[in-house]
Amino acid sequence: MDWTSEIENAAGRIAGYTVRTPVMHSDALWDRDIGLKLEQCQHTGSFKARGAFNTLRASDVPAGGVVAASGGNHGAAVAFAAQRLGHRARIFVPEIAGPAKIALIERTGAELTVVPGEYADALDMARRYEDEQGAMQIHAYDAPLTVAGQGTLLREWEAQGLEADTVLIAVGGGGLIAGALAWAQGARKIVAVEPVPCNALEAARAAGKPVDVAVSGVAANALGARRIGDICFGLAQQFDTPVVTVPDAAILDAQAALWQAHRLLVEPAGATALAALRCGAYVPEPDERVAVLVCGGNIAPDPLG
Amino acid sequence: MDWTSEIENAAGRIAGYTVRTPVMHSDALWDRDIGLKLEQCQHTGSFKARGAFNTLRASDVPAGGVVAASGGNHGAAVAFAAQRLGHRARIFVPEIAGPAKIALIERTGAELTVVPGEYADALDMARRYEDEQGAMQIHAYDAPLTVAGQGTLLREWEAQGLEADTVLIAVGGGGLIAGALAWAQGARKIVAVEPVPCNALEAARAAGKPVDVAVSGVAANALGARRIGDICFGLAQQFDTPVVTVPDAAILDAQAALWQAHRLLVEPAGATALAALRCGAYVPEPDERVAVLVCGGNIAPDPLG
Repeated sequence: MDWTSEIENAAGRIAGYTVRTPVMHSDALWDRDIGLKLEQCQHTGSFKARGAFNTLRASDVPAGGVVAASGGNHGAAVAFAAQRLGHRARIFVPEIAGPAKIALIERTGAELTVVPGEYADALDMARRYEDEQGAMQIHAYDAPLTVAGQGTLLREWEAQGLEADTVLIAVGGGGLIAGALAWAQGARKIVAVEPVPCNALEAARAAGKPVDVAVSGVAANALGARRIGDICFGLAQQFDTPVVTVPDAAILDAQAALWQAHRLLVEPAGATALAALRCGAYVPEPDERVAVLVCGGNIAPDPLG
Repeated sequence: MDWTSEIENAAGRIAGYTVRTPVMHSDALWDRDIGLKLEQCQHTGSFKARGAFNTLRASDVPAGGVVAASGGNHGAAVAFAAQRLGHRARIFVPEIAGPAKIALIERTGAELTVVPGEYADALDMARRYEDEQGAMQIHAYDAPLTVAGQGTLLREWEAQGLEADTVLIAVGGGGLIAGALAWAQGARKIVAVEPVPCNALEAARAAGKPVDVAVSGVAANALGARRIGDICFGLAQQFDTPVVTVPDAAILDAQAALWQAHRLLVEPAGATALAALRCGAYVPEPDERVAVLVCGGNIAPDPLG
């Protein structure tokens, strides 16, 4: 696949529909200066709006509308994009999404079904709905249009002056990091960061293929994919992407640091990449310039909810 | 006073000590695109760190250290800057600062006295302490070094590509807007926004001189100065600065909008300038490009406290 063209096309499709999210530098979060991109400022609070708008704008959406399964952030993004573009949307959310993310989806006006269990259970129900209703399925991470949409993020960051040698990115199902790998094409080091109890990419790299893992912990409602996406896995193999894991305590520490240092209030998944620096899971070289992608802000409970 | 030189000098003094805060555009907060600067990402959660570092770096601080009276944000900034630069700090805070801001100051390690009453009462005690202890007083808004420090904000925003014809800025004692007026020198329209129940500048403009007002409402612990500063008043008269007031309900609406649209969690004062657009207190011309300064994020209760 010609990812560069796919991502350029995606950038054209989503322009005017997504937020060009702010960037900054900080010397208050870690031992030395790091770059940050504040993607939690994106519509519906995470990068997922990029893939959702790209997919919908590139597709002939059937009268049955769109359907998505989601730990919360993808569902909110699909619901938001569908509403903005005038399509019907049905979202299946696992219980672990939690009330804040469920309320977020409800506010978009989408039809919503809360499914007992975890993400994989919601995906099963979404697939049944797709078959029965003729709706268009929008996969949360393992589809080329989704990945190309998320790939616009690193492209945008570069246009905003990204200078880092290395970018740390949190991984759930792998759509976001797949987009970054697809855009960078090896020209920049991309480090994958997973919570210890949501290590789908680490397990896949160890096994040599995507395998199922059990998921749990503070970031599970965003990063708790049971199995890494094939697109992500293929790109991670191609570029031999380093994978590090961080314990939940390190994620909560990074979340608190973002708030205390810069009044950036993010969900645990949004602080996971930073955690890898603060807890030493990833140790850059002395002259290595690093940047951290802050990817989601849908914290529970909603502080103004 | 040659404000341009003062502010240039301030920018040199605070470089490396303050955060170059991020900027963004949004079409999700109001009828059309607006520019934003996210100054709540500054150290200690507000613009006040600029004036504090400028003052301390420009001064011979006595052995008695520094003293400040503050509704909370200035005190936290002075305490932070003093700690960073190795000075003793004593902060007097009125009860209405609230537990979140009081905890923020405590975390810096400063000596803290909570004073019954409002800002003016804390200022009285800070002045007594200054006389008795030989400490250096750092005024929250009505001192040239404070104003010059806050003036670095608009200078920095312009260097980041500010395109707006008009910038809306919340006013308490007037240090922030004085800095902006002093930097702009009439080249850009600056609009003052006050909460209806904290209208020190509006009252002063009506009376032709600074006068005491009663203060109350949701933003009083940041914008509740009883009397506008002389420096601010003089600059507002010189440039005939428009002053608009917004009801507390509009401030809370703007605060909710910043969170829901962009996951920017700010205190009421930080949302006050935006409120003027959303509630129609300030109505720009059809082709007028507007920007809003988001100035403080020390919300109570602390969402991670």
